[in-house]
Amino acid sequence: MSLLENIRSPRDLKTLDAEELTELAEEIRHFLIHAVARTGGHLGPNLGVVELTIALHRSFDSPADRILWDTGHQSYVHKLLTGRQDFSKLRGKGGLSGYPSREESEHDVIENSHASTVLGWADGLAKANQVLGRWNRHVVAVIGDGALTGGMAWEALNNIAAAKDRQLIIVVNDNERSYAPTIGGLADHLATLRTTDGYERFLSWGKDAIQGLPAIGKPLYESLHGAKKGFKDAFAPQGMFEDLGLKYLGPIDGHDVAAVESALRRAKRFHGPVLVHCRTEKGRGYQPALEDDADRFHTVGVIDPLTSRPLAPSAGRSWTSVFGDEMLRIGKERPDVVAITAAMLHPVGLTRFAEAFPDRVWDVGIAEQHGATSAAGLATGGLHPVFAVYATFLNRAFDQVLMDVALHKCGVTFVLDRAGVTGTDGPSHNGMWDMSVLQVVPGLRIAAPRDADQLRAQLREAVDVDDAPTVIRFPKENVGEPVPALAREGGTDVIGLPADGAEPQVLLVSVGTMAGVCLEAAALLADRGVPCTVVDPRWVKPVDPALVPLADRHRLVAVVEDNSRTGGVGWAVGQALRDADVDVPLRTFGIPEQFLPHAKRSEVLADLGLTPAEIAGRISAALARIEAAGAPVVSKENDDA
Amino acid sequence: MSLLENIRSPRDLKTLDAEELTELAEEIRHFLIHAVARTGGHLGPNLGVVELTIALHRSFDSPADRILWDTGHQSYVHKLLTGRQDFSKLRGKGGLSGYPSREESEHDVIENSHASTVLGWADGLAKANQVLGRWNRHVVAVIGDGALTGGMAWEALNNIAAAKDRQLIIVVNDNERSYAPTIGGLADHLATLRTTDGYERFLSWGKDAIQGLPAIGKPLYESLHGAKKGFKDAFAPQGMFEDLGLKYLGPIDGHDVAAVESALRRAKRFHGPVLVHCRTEKGRGYQPALEDDADRFHTVGVIDPLTSRPLAPSAGRSWTSVFGDEMLRIGKERPDVVAITAAMLHPVGLTRFAEAFPDRVWDVGIAEQHGATSAAGLATGGLHPVFAVYATFLNRAFDQVLMDVALHKCGVTFVLDRAGVTGTDGPSHNGMWDMSVLQVVPGLRIAAPRDADQLRAQLREAVDVDDAPTVIRFPKENVGEPVPALAREGGTDVIGLPADGAEPQVLLVSVGTMAGVCLEAAALLADRGVPCTVVDPRWVKPVDPALVPLADRHRLVAVVEDNSRTGGVGWAVGQALRDADVDVPLRTFGIPEQFLPHAKRSEVLADLGLTPAEIAGRISAALARIEAAGAPVVSKENDDA
Repeated sequence: MSLLENIRSPRDLKTLDAEELTELAEEIRHFLIHAVARTGGHLGPNLGVVELTIALHRSFDSPADRILWDTGHQSYVHKLLTGRQDFSKLRGKGGLSGYPSREESEHDVIENSHASTVLGWADGLAKANQVLGRWNRHVVAVIGDGALTGGMAWEALNNIAAAKDRQLIIVVNDNERSYAPTIGGLADHLATLRTTDGYERFLSWGKDAIQGLPAIGKPLYESLHGAKKGFKDAFAPQGMFEDLGLKYLGPIDGHDVAAVESALRRAKRFHGPVLVHCRTEKGRGYQPALEDDADRFHTVGVIDPLTSRPLAPSAGRSWTSVFGDEMLRIGKERPDVVAITAAMLHPVGLTRFAEAFPDRVWDVGIAEQHGATSAAGLATGGLHPVFAVYATFLNRAFDQVLMDVALHKCGVTFVLDRAGVTGTDGPSHNGMWDMSVLQVVPGLRIAAPRDADQLRAQLREAVDVDDAPTVIRFPKENVGEPVPALAREGGTDVIGLPADGAEPQVLLVSVGTMAGVCLEAAALLADRGVPCTVVDPRWVKPVDPALVPLADRHRLVAVVEDNSRTGGVGWAVGQALRDADVDVPLRTFGIPEQFLPHAKRSEVLADLGLTPAEIAGRISAALARIEAAGAPVVSKENDDA
Repeated sequence: MSLLENIRSPRDLKTLDAEELTELAEEIRHFLIHAVARTGGHLGPNLGVVELTIALHRSFDSPADRILWDTGHQSYVHKLLTGRQDFSKLRGKGGLSGYPSREESEHDVIENSHASTVLGWADGLAKANQVLGRWNRHVVAVIGDGALTGGMAWEALNNIAAAKDRQLIIVVNDNERSYAPTIGGLADHLATLRTTDGYERFLSWGKDAIQGLPAIGKPLYESLHGAKKGFKDAFAPQGMFEDLGLKYLGPIDGHDVAAVESALRRAKRFHGPVLVHCRTEKGRGYQPALEDDADRFHTVGVIDPLTSRPLAPSAGRSWTSVFGDEMLRIGKERPDVVAITAAMLHPVGLTRFAEAFPDRVWDVGIAEQHGATSAAGLATGGLHPVFAVYATFLNRAFDQVLMDVALHKCGVTFVLDRAGVTGTDGPSHNGMWDMSVLQVVPGLRIAAPRDADQLRAQLREAVDVDDAPTVIRFPKENVGEPVPALAREGGTDVIGLPADGAEPQVLLVSVGTMAGVCLEAAALLADRGVPCTVVDPRWVKPVDPALVPLADRHRLVAVVEDNSRTGGVGWAVGQALRDADVDVPLRTFGIPEQFLPHAKRSEVLADLGLTPAEIAGRISAALARIEAAGAPVVSKENDDA
């Protein structure tokens, strides 16, 4: 392992010769396979960029030059080459982040794991260099072909291409896929580019051949030469990018360090925007990854690096699979139900639906905006689309949910997987905003199922709504045990009551999967002489009117949610109570207004105080303060609450 | 006016001959100029699509065929041809909407005024036709060249192009501008397309000329023919769209009905996605519009149609101009302050800044996502960007504000013009969501200035923050009179106190421009024996801690905001009070959770009950209910509030 260990900073790369570089690449792959196998993490993408990353750091002077990674899970090699080789706690509490991190290194810029952002960042950084006169500094953005399907990438390309005098180097890391194979017209175009031999060889032949012709030869050559770009396109159809005004270099073998370096040298000499098209192979050098058609080992859990098998196979069923199975059943019953995914067919559980109904499912690419707006079109056209997407990524489509789906009263169901705290992927993967930002959307309804049965039932309730958007949100990991309802009030399930008919003092409103935590907190409070009612409103937006008289029969209401406290269900319950002039004290428990560090989901929840003990303790304290402050505040005589 | 009056439905168009069509177009232009002059509205865009709209309705059978308009302000001609010729109350209460409206007509589909959505809608509708076997139905989407700069349009193009067997007709209405001239690599590409003679003529010549050559001729021809697309590009570089997989037809003179109809006929025969590139002239047929370089009379107020001058010139200064002037001053003092606009340099007040500092302002196109993310890059590169944008359009960039700007602690200032109720432009133009959805963004600060002095001061405070996003929001129309502060508590201005030292009962928290309404409401309450304190916290996020002890000294707190009540400042104040165990009753006044119909701003606010009388009445009633319900709920003894 001697070569890699001696790389303390990118500078150390620059003295290595070709043979050493090959050896280094091999060492890095060996390191990645064994290190990521121990902790889990993004394996396939990083195996694909080993040579590319080496070439980038040899060609530029980071951090003065800015090397920017889109969707930073492809930054492991970059970490190894910039002084970070302790992967023992990768993505774990206190360990290296699975994404770039400014706290970790001055070589890191973009921490955001949402795709397609890098060109926007690069445009801003290049503009700043220009305004501040840093003429000799380069900005290099690495973006996958999959990420180019996102609208932000287009907006940025359009701006970058317009500035003919501002250098910016775009490296397209083309492995023909994002998570899944890349889709769309762009993918077809890239495929055309890939199969091209390059026009230079032709050009030198063509010049002689055509110019040698009598009479017509010279004028024809000149005419073709004058329309050089078009002529070039005939044999190397880099058309689209050059049409936009970007200089195109490629395709380059992204596993050939010398070839990539040579292209980057040419790019550096060009005083304008330039795109370097590198072909790479996701999972390169690890046979099990290469044989995995679904995602080339995009992410792995803890595995045996030799067999590539999980060391601790997950017990129990995931929320995703419960959704996927029910979706398949619904699809069989209802021919009008169709599905949409944004480049994540398998991770959101739509694989079986797609196998059964290939003509009723669409992968729109990394394009959440299009997912939402095309869903509005599908609904207007008479179908009921179900758009299954990670909760954090729906933020990309907020305007479309509001303005296309809700304003037009379209029956579209959004299924938000990985809602709440996700943990190891760090701050930008947590799905902790959905129940807040979606609160403002008129007519939209949100369900937070507490167990598998509820998920199945609520999914069916959602697809039955044909005049408004509906949302079902559930977390990462496995569904727990069923939590039975003891009674139903309005649309609300009562899931916990005081023992032996004691008069309840606290109403605990549990949102979705917080049911277990709430029931345990209620037990702790009962032990302290504070009997509680625990309810699950099932649909958390709009607030179930039944909660108001329920609240009015208690001394304190506590809402517990796996979502930002700001703007969430707790706040909405507060509004419902105030509007009914029910001024019973309310306390809300959820995620504070901050970005969360990476750690296991359970660790994060504990750090946030979303545990039974902490919740029970804070409720006790609040009750004591209210007692001390004077009279009870319950408006029991209120005649129309 | 006989021809136009006789058009009751699109069917009536189909019997007209060429001469009558010319006459009809003239009648429509005459009608538009005089009708819009009386009410105000979108003039330039509609004058540009007269012939295009006629050709569309002659070529298709709406509503069975779907004719879809992007950014629906270009739908006036469509309205005239589909049975809506009473423009007397256009955009007024009870009158025609300034956008398509499903309530008005079965010929209308998309009501949303946000740009770049139409291709997503079209993709969804075409997919629905395919799934439901409606093989003979067409979907036609009309999109401006400006709207193609938006990311959603790209996401949709990528999807549309991929479906080779699904017909969908895209009509690009290319007038070289959105509000302002269109920017970017795409604009350059469209310019190339526009100046092309068409390759067909060349092709017939080229075939003969080259094939006639001895020896090399035939193989050369075949080789070139084999790479047909590239050869085509040499002389008609429609490259980009064809590269993506769209059939390209054009450029067509969009003011020649017969030419457009002929192109649409060809498009209808093609069994796949096709793009028809039509050139039009914004403001066509109205000389004052054509002479207006800034925006070709994009929107007008009430004007004299002959002189084109406003009939009731607006008195007083607009919020926009106060911002623009201060921004210019700041620009002179601070060379690091730069500006961004999303295709609206003039409407957001950046014209003078741009004249003074042309190298420090960027029009990014209709691309709010890129506006925000490139701002993060600019800030990371050492500048302080100010992104001036209409409040409603920032929703497009929510994810970028959260994940690129806030997560990376970038000092970016967002200036939200047209915040709150805007009125006549209808539901999708109201800027009523910003103070709700932005609440969840960690570290972000929001200022709502109440008058011109506060706007100037808070803008300066905002650009001094270099480690977090800041937001300044202000409404449409003119700034009112200055509202002086009587005192300051913490960061909060006290702007109203009870007369002659009476003990105040109600704390009115006024947000931004609601100051006047709150002071009047306080006067009405004082008349009823309810003395009030009125405060303006200036920065409404985070909640000023000084509000907590202030609230604790009153019997009721009322928050009044020109924003969705859901998730807004009122809810945030509630959280701050609860977290301090201050359970004083709270009531919140704002916009209810609904989409607002079009009407004048003052009419909308009155309908929503955001008037002094209504607010005072509801506060009185709440006090009475609280009184009736029992003891006061103020925790005056609270020792650490």
